[in-house]
Amino acid sequence: MPAKKRKMAMVVESGTIDKIYCAFILGSTAVSMGTEVHMYFTFWGLQMLQKGEMEKARLPVEYQHMEESFRKKLEELKYPTPYELLKSMKGSGLLHIYACTPTMEMFGVKKENLIPEVDKLVGAATFLDIAADADVSLFI
Amino acid sequence: MPAKKRKMAMVVESGTIDKIYCAFILGSTAVSMGTEVHMYFTFWGLQMLQKGEMEKARLPVEYQHMEESFRKKLEELKYPTPYELLKSMKGSGLLHIYACTPTMEMFGVKKENLIPEVDKLVGAATFLDIAADADVSLFI
Amino acid sequence: MPAKKRKMAMVVESGTIDKIYCAFILGSTAVSMGTEVHMYFTFWGLQMLQKGEMEKARLPVEYQHMEESFRKKLEELKYPTPYELLKSMKGSGLLHIYACTPTMEMFGVKKENLIPEVDKLVGAATFLDIAADADVSLFI
Repeated sequence: MPAKKRKMAMVVESGTIDKIYCAFILGSTAVSMGTEVHMYFTFWGLQMLQKGEMEKARLPVEYQHMEESFRKKLEELKYPTPYELLKSMKGSGLLHIYACTPTMEMFGVKKENLIPEVDKLVGAATFLDIAADADVSLFI
Repeated sequence: MPAKKRKMAMVVESGTIDKIYCAFILGSTAVSMGTEVHMYFTFWGLQMLQKGEMEKARLPVEYQHMEESFRKKLEELKYPTPYELLKSMKGSGLLHIYACTPTMEMFGVKKENLIPEVDKLVGAATFLDIAADADVSLFI
Repeated sequence: MPAKKRKMAMVVESGTIDKIYCAFILGSTAVSMGTEVHMYFTFWGLQMLQKGEMEKARLPVEYQHMEESFRKKLEELKYPTPYELLKSMKGSGLLHIYACTPTMEMFGVKKENLIPEVDKLVGAATFLDIAADADVSLFI
């Protein structure tokens, strides 16, 4: 009998590139360990699911003077972009992406503008059911 | 024999309106599912428990250019204010609100200035005991 | 037979003094309750592990106008500094400090510049294994 898969749940509220990288590096590492990853994108995180938005993510105001050197370093290291990380997680079959419907309503975000990797448009109840059953839950 | 109630614990450290809405939407959804919700307000979150402060909560600096349209949209949708959400959660009997005593000391916040919905003034130990026993714990 | 020790896992991503205090006050309280505390420092949190950096931590932009009065109050209360809290947690034998190796690479942080209290330089996989087994996990 196969062991129950480990499960990780994240609320991605932030839309700055540091937090997006954090969420996606934790997520990528988790799927590489065979963990099911559930990401619920809300507020500024939800904005990042709109086509072309993830590429424009910036550092928080406090750190914007480091942005140029940060990006140069990432290029030098040939570090994957956030969207590349997301697509590679998705390829594992272990990543589930949820877009927060109240946020979509609040900000007038349309379904057709979201990236195709989004699995479901749901409210918080769906996420809470998953989180209650997860081994790790994080709000990012 | 009744099943054990699900329990959710949140540290609310942030005082910006986006994070307050996140905490309160997650909380409202949880109580509507019969989940016990425990919110421990600290730092900027604790400031929001002072009478009249929640109404002044703003978006983070990075997003303040969106504030007017955000507020207009909320009005248009007749979306409840954060304080309305808090009172409605409180009405369920499932919400427990804790004010962080070290923060009150650090910022000179007085008990009589807190909104009446606060249940207890406690330190981190009380929160950690609750969180250790919760199904979901989040730091917002 | 001794009961299993409670375990708490935190990702410390933030480098502002409010969040550092939150992480360290929660951590200090936890160790005083006999809980094992595991802190994984990444991004701006990791910067704070460089010698001399924790002392320079500031409030977030939104609150910098309160910084002078905040520091005065802390002095008045003879409140321990973040580094003093960290060393006192470390003295309990219950605190484990991990520095995030991808962040060190991204920002060119060198091992010899980290404070001596750091236990291990590791990637996210080590943290996720600990978090999956923890009673409380928080992202700060």
